[in-house]
Amino acid sequence: MSNITAKEDILNLLNKIKAGEVSPEQAVNLLRTETFSDLGYAKVDHHRSLRQGVCEVIFGQGKTPEQIVGILSNMRKNGSHNVLVTRISQQTADFIANSNIPINYHPIPQLGITLSGKELPRVGNIIVASGGTSDMAVCEEAALTAEALGNNVTRLYDVGVAGLHRLLLRLDTLIEARVIIVVAGMEGALPSVIGGLASCPVIAVPTSIGYGANFGGLSALLCMLNSCASGVSVVNIDNGFGAGFIASRINQMKGL
Amino acid sequence: MSNITAKEDILNLLNKIKAGEVSPEQAVNLLRTETFSDLGYAKVDHHRSLRQGVCEVIFGQGKTPEQIVGILSNMRKNGSHNVLVTRISQQTADFIANSNIPINYHPIPQLGITLSGKELPRVGNIIVASGGTSDMAVCEEAALTAEALGNNVTRLYDVGVAGLHRLLLRLDTLIEARVIIVVAGMEGALPSVIGGLASCPVIAVPTSIGYGANFGGLSALLCMLNSCASGVSVVNIDNGFGAGFIASRINQMKGL
Amino acid sequence: MSNITAKEDILNLLNKIKAGEVSPEQAVNLLRTETFSDLGYAKVDHHRSLRQGVCEVIFGQGKTPEQIVGILSNMRKNGSHNVLVTRISQQTADFIANSNIPINYHPIPQLGITLSGKELPRVGNIIVASGGTSDMAVCEEAALTAEALGNNVTRLYDVGVAGLHRLLLRLDTLIEARVIIVVAGMEGALPSVIGGLASCPVIAVPTSIGYGANFGGLSALLCMLNSCASGVSVVNIDNGFGAGFIASRINQMKGL
Amino acid sequence: MSNITAKEDILNLLNKIKAGEVSPEQAVNLLRTETFSDLGYAKVDHHRSLRQGVCEVIFGQGKTPEQIVGILSNMRKNGSHNVLVTRISQQTADFIANSNIPINYHPIPQLGITLSGKELPRVGNIIVASGGTSDMAVCEEAALTAEALGNNVTRLYDVGVAGLHRLLLRLDTLIEARVIIVVAGMEGALPSVIGGLASCPVIAVPTSIGYGANFGGLSALLCMLNSCASGVSVVNIDNGFGAGFIASRINQMKGL
Amino acid sequence: MSNITAKEDILNLLNKIKAGEVSPEQAVNLLRTETFSDLGYAKVDHHRSLRQGVCEVIFGQGKTPEQIVGILSNMRKNGSHNVLVTRISQQTADFIANSNIPINYHPIPQLGITLSGKELPRVGNIIVASGGTSDMAVCEEAALTAEALGNNVTRLYDVGVAGLHRLLLRLDTLIEARVIIVVAGMEGALPSVIGGLASCPVIAVPTSIGYGANFGGLSALLCMLNSCASGVSVVNIDNGFGAGFIASRINQMKGL
Amino acid sequence: MSNITAKEDILNLLNKIKAGEVSPEQAVNLLRTETFSDLGYAKVDHHRSLRQGVCEVIFGQGKTPEQIVGILSNMRKNGSHNVLVTRISQQTADFIANSNIPINYHPIPQLGITLSGKELPRVGNIIVASGGTSDMAVCEEAALTAEALGNNVTRLYDVGVAGLHRLLLRLDTLIEARVIIVVAGMEGALPSVIGGLASCPVIAVPTSIGYGANFGGLSALLCMLNSCASGVSVVNIDNGFGAGFIASRINQMKGL
Amino acid sequence: MSNITAKEDILNLLNKIKAGEVSPEQAVNLLRTETFSDLGYAKVDHHRSLRQGVCEVIFGQGKTPEQIVGILSNMRKNGSHNVLVTRISQQTADFIANSNIPINYHPIPQLGITLSGKELPRVGNIIVASGGTSDMAVCEEAALTAEALGNNVTRLYDVGVAGLHRLLLRLDTLIEARVIIVVAGMEGALPSVIGGLASCPVIAVPTSIGYGANFGGLSALLCMLNSCASGVSVVNIDNGFGAGFIASRINQMKGL
Amino acid sequence: MSNITAKEDILNLLNKIKAGEVSPEQAVNLLRTETFSDLGYAKVDHHRSLRQGVCEVIFGQGKTPEQIVGILSNMRKNGSHNVLVTRISQQTADFIANSNIPINYHPIPQLGITLSGKELPRVGNIIVASGGTSDMAVCEEAALTAEALGNNVTRLYDVGVAGLHRLLLRLDTLIEARVIIVVAGMEGALPSVIGGLASCPVIAVPTSIGYGANFGGLSALLCMLNSCASGVSVVNIDNGFGAGFIASRINQMKGL
Repeated sequence: MSNITAKEDILNLLNKIKAGEVSPEQAVNLLRTETFSDLGYAKVDHHRSLRQGVCEVIFGQGKTPEQIVGILSNMRKNGSHNVLVTRISQQTADFIANSNIPINYHPIPQLGITLSGKELPRVGNIIVASGGTSDMAVCEEAALTAEALGNNVTRLYDVGVAGLHRLLLRLDTLIEARVIIVVAGMEGALPSVIGGLASCPVIAVPTSIGYGANFGGLSALLCMLNSCASGVSVVNIDNGFGAGFIASRINQMKGL
Repeated sequence: MSNITAKEDILNLLNKIKAGEVSPEQAVNLLRTETFSDLGYAKVDHHRSLRQGVCEVIFGQGKTPEQIVGILSNMRKNGSHNVLVTRISQQTADFIANSNIPINYHPIPQLGITLSGKELPRVGNIIVASGGTSDMAVCEEAALTAEALGNNVTRLYDVGVAGLHRLLLRLDTLIEARVIIVVAGMEGALPSVIGGLASCPVIAVPTSIGYGANFGGLSALLCMLNSCASGVSVVNIDNGFGAGFIASRINQMKGL
Repeated sequence: MSNITAKEDILNLLNKIKAGEVSPEQAVNLLRTETFSDLGYAKVDHHRSLRQGVCEVIFGQGKTPEQIVGILSNMRKNGSHNVLVTRISQQTADFIANSNIPINYHPIPQLGITLSGKELPRVGNIIVASGGTSDMAVCEEAALTAEALGNNVTRLYDVGVAGLHRLLLRLDTLIEARVIIVVAGMEGALPSVIGGLASCPVIAVPTSIGYGANFGGLSALLCMLNSCASGVSVVNIDNGFGAGFIASRINQMKGL
Repeated sequence: MSNITAKEDILNLLNKIKAGEVSPEQAVNLLRTETFSDLGYAKVDHHRSLRQGVCEVIFGQGKTPEQIVGILSNMRKNGSHNVLVTRISQQTADFIANSNIPINYHPIPQLGITLSGKELPRVGNIIVASGGTSDMAVCEEAALTAEALGNNVTRLYDVGVAGLHRLLLRLDTLIEARVIIVVAGMEGALPSVIGGLASCPVIAVPTSIGYGANFGGLSALLCMLNSCASGVSVVNIDNGFGAGFIASRINQMKGL
Repeated sequence: MSNITAKEDILNLLNKIKAGEVSPEQAVNLLRTETFSDLGYAKVDHHRSLRQGVCEVIFGQGKTPEQIVGILSNMRKNGSHNVLVTRISQQTADFIANSNIPINYHPIPQLGITLSGKELPRVGNIIVASGGTSDMAVCEEAALTAEALGNNVTRLYDVGVAGLHRLLLRLDTLIEARVIIVVAGMEGALPSVIGGLASCPVIAVPTSIGYGANFGGLSALLCMLNSCASGVSVVNIDNGFGAGFIASRINQMKGL
Repeated sequence: MSNITAKEDILNLLNKIKAGEVSPEQAVNLLRTETFSDLGYAKVDHHRSLRQGVCEVIFGQGKTPEQIVGILSNMRKNGSHNVLVTRISQQTADFIANSNIPINYHPIPQLGITLSGKELPRVGNIIVASGGTSDMAVCEEAALTAEALGNNVTRLYDVGVAGLHRLLLRLDTLIEARVIIVVAGMEGALPSVIGGLASCPVIAVPTSIGYGANFGGLSALLCMLNSCASGVSVVNIDNGFGAGFIASRINQMKGL
Repeated sequence: MSNITAKEDILNLLNKIKAGEVSPEQAVNLLRTETFSDLGYAKVDHHRSLRQGVCEVIFGQGKTPEQIVGILSNMRKNGSHNVLVTRISQQTADFIANSNIPINYHPIPQLGITLSGKELPRVGNIIVASGGTSDMAVCEEAALTAEALGNNVTRLYDVGVAGLHRLLLRLDTLIEARVIIVVAGMEGALPSVIGGLASCPVIAVPTSIGYGANFGGLSALLCMLNSCASGVSVVNIDNGFGAGFIASRINQMKGL
Repeated sequence: MSNITAKEDILNLLNKIKAGEVSPEQAVNLLRTETFSDLGYAKVDHHRSLRQGVCEVIFGQGKTPEQIVGILSNMRKNGSHNVLVTRISQQTADFIANSNIPINYHPIPQLGITLSGKELPRVGNIIVASGGTSDMAVCEEAALTAEALGNNVTRLYDVGVAGLHRLLLRLDTLIEARVIIVVAGMEGALPSVIGGLASCPVIAVPTSIGYGANFGGLSALLCMLNSCASGVSVVNIDNGFGAGFIASRINQMKGL
């Protein structure tokens, strides 16, 4: 009975109760024990992928290497092999690999991807654009996340608004995208410019890169929220993962 | 030669130059004069709809009734009849109607829609959800925008997190949506909860409704940007129009 | 079947399904229709009082008089007569009274209380203390809320820290309280001083009263959050209702 | 005459003066010397436990190991053996232990508890709930504080709003609590959700855990202050001790 | 001896003292009485134009019509006829005109210019560019100030970044400017884009126009301060006058 | 027994208890009833003038005319005739005068002074300096307060840092002051300049006058707090009364 | 001619010019070279002590040990031996001592005082009060500064508002002070309480000590600026030196 | 065909297309490949110097030494030898030198300048003024940038507003400048004072130097933006490079 999923489980369970297969008391217990494992420090959710439709992710920041390996092991026992582990150090990645969990580590975005043997096939067309070299860690977090979730990704870096011709000469690329992720620090103007040129959804990611009155990314964040271009929505400062995740959902939309 | 569009115009024009049909100097002039009308106070863009793929919108806030009528008249001469006019008063709407431009005015979101004779057919499935009665103006700006752009919209109001059962009993509705717009003021927690239940893109709209430490919508904005639910992106405070516009783009995505 | 409450409803319903009294499909519908009325602009919750253990409250701010009367009428049909309506004008109160709903209106805190015929008996001992005359609207919102919820309230106004002897001479009163609500604007120091003298829970309410660097209540809010006195928790700026509500819950705690 | 307490000392002393047992000048001196020891860097308060009704606490942050040992020694001479020492390093704990003061050190919340030989018996029922693994230090500061003050504590970790079913399946636990402490970083939405489900006082603790636009805990703090759920009050960012202390006061309320 | 100017006055005066023409005590008095008139509510500076090289300006905001007329009259007696009066209402302008001081009032920027009979000849080439119709008041304050100070001004309105082709088609105009003033609200991205295209100094003026997270112009201000384009400096929010003044100084620079 | 003052009352009272003149219980009652009158909305403090050494003040902002007259009447019965009433309208002043309380109203700082028949003699030398005409309301609140408290005041208005010679020519006046109050809005630089020239205490008063990035006086406040000149302390934004009060205390210091 | 002081130098110099003793050109040069030494990285002011009436101070923060020794050496050559050097490390103090400049270093406030052989005699009575042990560095910076400037200082530490009796028992000490410096972090309430009890000027110093919503001292700063007690002015966060300096000026006021 | 510049390239290219020298498709490719080199991590712009008229700059912050050498090498191949590299460590400078790229490193502003063999001749007159020793890093970034761009620079350090005579004695120097850069931390008042004395454009640079309520440079930034002196514009906090760049553009303005 390990196949209870959020989408249909209530009705299924109610029918089983009706059929006398489970008592009401058992039903409540089943729901409690079947849907996640309680590791004490974490409750590992077995059915999130079913409910949310994606490969799993562990936010590595603030977890010990031991906790991460514990969660990964539990997931693997329940069949989840393809897992993103965000914001971990090389040391943590090595610790995971030494725990017999094969992992592919990307040092610039500090992102690990555990290997399932078979990668997801890639579909569609997501652009990750950025204004400068220094935003590359956030860009790669977005791009690798989107790739891990099974999307084709085109990288378009260092096309900032202060050198507009570099962007305009890639106009054809922009126009063919299904989704565009725009990463920018400091002034954060790039999403507005791209949003005015493109006709697909634009996900803007402010970064904390900069100095002075950027106030840890606040300047870019406010600029993006106030964008006059009408197709732009925004995620948290430095949240490359979130942008890649949302872009994947949009890119993989089924037709009407 | 009024059919120059951003997508193909550069190549077209270059070919005409090559063919000697237009001189280089003429080409530059053509681009300048054919793509918009200069009204002095505004440059009306004739081809934005082509480039951005939507019906037109005029941001009414900060424009005089005369300016709005001027822009609307110019648009209509160039074939745009289906125009949203946001944040205008009843008085301005009456002024527009008295200028022989038929307009449908919605007082709660202060939104006017000029009538083209034929409405766009509605497709797909966008939900607009909110936590309280007082956010209704922003909700309706989002919902009416999405409808004007040709989308089916389901309204799910007053399902706030402090009364969770009202939301959970609509779980089936949530799960069937293609896009969900979540509007919330004060604490702004609703998008996180819905983002954890749904598997489609969620557009979060913070509102300025509240008092005390909501600081004009800042509390809801920060809460939404920090959402732990992975599919949530955010637009500006009170920006119902923007949310409706983005949701429309996503809802109308073609399949791969 | 109108007596479904959150606390026991799941088990009850499951048992009825088991007994064949209701089908699983009916169960879901019952839950949806029995627990609240959908007025369009609001979903009136019939069982909140059961689930939260208090008389009902309507936040009046941002609702039209018609909406408030609509909600009140629906509540009364479902048996809730004792309702607080916060932040309404005298005009709205008159409108309610003219709709044949008897209401007692307090102009200083802009608070209305609809009359059920019999008031709740008052128990225990809640103090509402404040530093100055100008915070009286918030004080009275707290005090009247607590009284409406069935608590004895002692008002101790104008005992600010700049005239400490006025406070110290009421030390005996402070020491006998079960809960103390402290309302303060500007510097917000009073809760720390009272928190150091009393041995019961203290609820601090910052107010927006002041000028200059009080920034709409931010100064008092930060001061209270940083209180060195160990028994102080804080509610939103100007949130007299919330403080009265929490104080009532604590005052009415059953013994171990 | 070491038994002067704030609650009755003024009257006692006045009676002794009247009886000629102490002169007015002596009375003032007695008050000054009997109620605390002046260590130069600190004034150790002998009667705070009497006046505030709890075991003692030393805020370790910003004090040298020598100062902490000095204060602890002075307290022990005056009969206080059961002392919480917050925010100290393992090194400081070792230094205390090496000074012949038995101490129990908890590394995650960086909290030490000196041992009195006999622990307080535990009563009642306090829940500490949190949304994620990374808030555990603050959770444990709250939980251990509450336990040291003589309360039963149930830990309910990793029940965040983005995976609502994990929370809902523990509804029965929530409903039986006398007080609930809810710890949350980032978006800070969990207290609102729990506040809507429970009918006991809820103490919300924002944490500084997060990144980007969480601004050191500001996002969670503002979200919690703006909570629509009516039983929620808030303490300072990361203030697990304060939450545990207040929860203890409420849990141990005597019946009316 | 009314021709003491800051540039040479110290040396002149010292020489006169040496020559015995004035006593040291007289020198101090002369400096005090010759350089300004004390009207009580204002000290009218007779030599600011000499010292700062421009026509005079009165900041009208916060002054009564009577005070403004008093200052204007005093200036005119001392030879200053060409005076800008900023941020005054139509009523104040009428009051000035009725006091026999000819004034030219511009209602959009709420700016008055008193007439000296002969206007300054206009030189050079200043562009005032803006992204939207609603920033026009600030644009016109800048443009009219620059014209009053004797500069040619080209207005380039509604060339926002979300419709980039409107800007690019005016590239030749931009490249020929000596100074460019860029006025923008909301996201404030336009100065960065223009700063990347132009090779002359760019003065950026954030405006308070917008809603939501623009926080009274803060979003545009931060965006402009963080501009990646290297020739951009910034003035206060809505400070059209300041921008026009600085642009005039730069435009009128003498060659090396 | 109405002459109990904070300074000596404890010892006096203790001696009376010892002498059997009052019982301990009476002593507590005496303290409670003799030191202030409880008007319900306010506790009027009879001995504050003794304890704080100044004429009384009522903060008018946020009090009704009736409350102010109530407090004034109570004060007058207890011998306080010389009372400042800050931030009241002309209407309130008229209401006070019509209640047979003679009052001198100053419309610019919205300040009333009730007349005691004999004014305090004025001593010493306080300067009130400001940078512009528009700060005059705050300047006059400071100056009139200082005069009412018995100090000589020299007004030095419109000597802002952008026209430094106007200030330097009054250097002799500055150097002879015992205390200088410096009032400035916008940039708030004047206190630093004066602080560097003078050798007496300087009280800086930021004002909320300005626009754009002054954020309600924040810019001036921060500038003044960060002053490099070593003798400058700061009061709240627009707090002319506070500055006048402190300056009076310093001006009237007795010699060592 | 090294005795030019700001107070009389202009008149002196003018008289010498008149007498032909110096030419106007020489006068300007004299002023430039006699009043300070230009060390390149600093302009050492020889007459500041005359003009400002205090011993000298060097702000050590941000200067290299070599620069500090250079400035000290230059001062000593010009007769200034008694110099405070703020915010320097033990290493810098050792470097100064090794450069043959005798210095007394206080590690808690990181403050050095160079020794002149004879200390200033101490006069008057300044209290430095604080609420907790952790503010001691700022307290000592204030106290040592005041002592170095020739004032008697009484330290009154750990008398925070959460333990009011510790403060009240020192009321006699408070009342006898000529100036009180109150240092407080976190909530910053202590200056208000002391300001209400004392009748002398109170200088409030917010500190950055604390955590969570203290935001680097902002909470204490705002609380102090909003103080209801009328004799309180405020200096920058952690600015113990400034408070000691101002207190010294006030303490040493001559009688009228 | 490597001489395509932004100013004339469109017309040139169009003419070549017309002449059949290049096909339209080739034209688009040429534009894409000729104007910059794509290094993957950066797009090196070959013609920025032509389009922007200055020597090149690389923002070193956030780039690896390898990336910087890669960009420098590419530039040198395309003829750019005179390059500023900002915000790099000594280590990075050594790495560059060891890669056979001659570089002149300035440790105080952490600025490197690669050597082209021949320096630009210096013209005009730019002043860099500052209030204190600790702002020297930002000052030197501005001064060295301006010198590298071919301008004469006069340094005027340590002339802060708290010692005004040091500034006034350099009045003649100030008056002769063509542009003045004013660098100031803490209070940021110096640009206002200098702006009132000078008649040339003033570029204000706030610095993050300070402590307490300077909030990372915010105090100086706000002060400068609110300057009452009319010729002052502002760049980002600590942006010495930007100020030097803008000052160079203004200093090198051609006459009308």
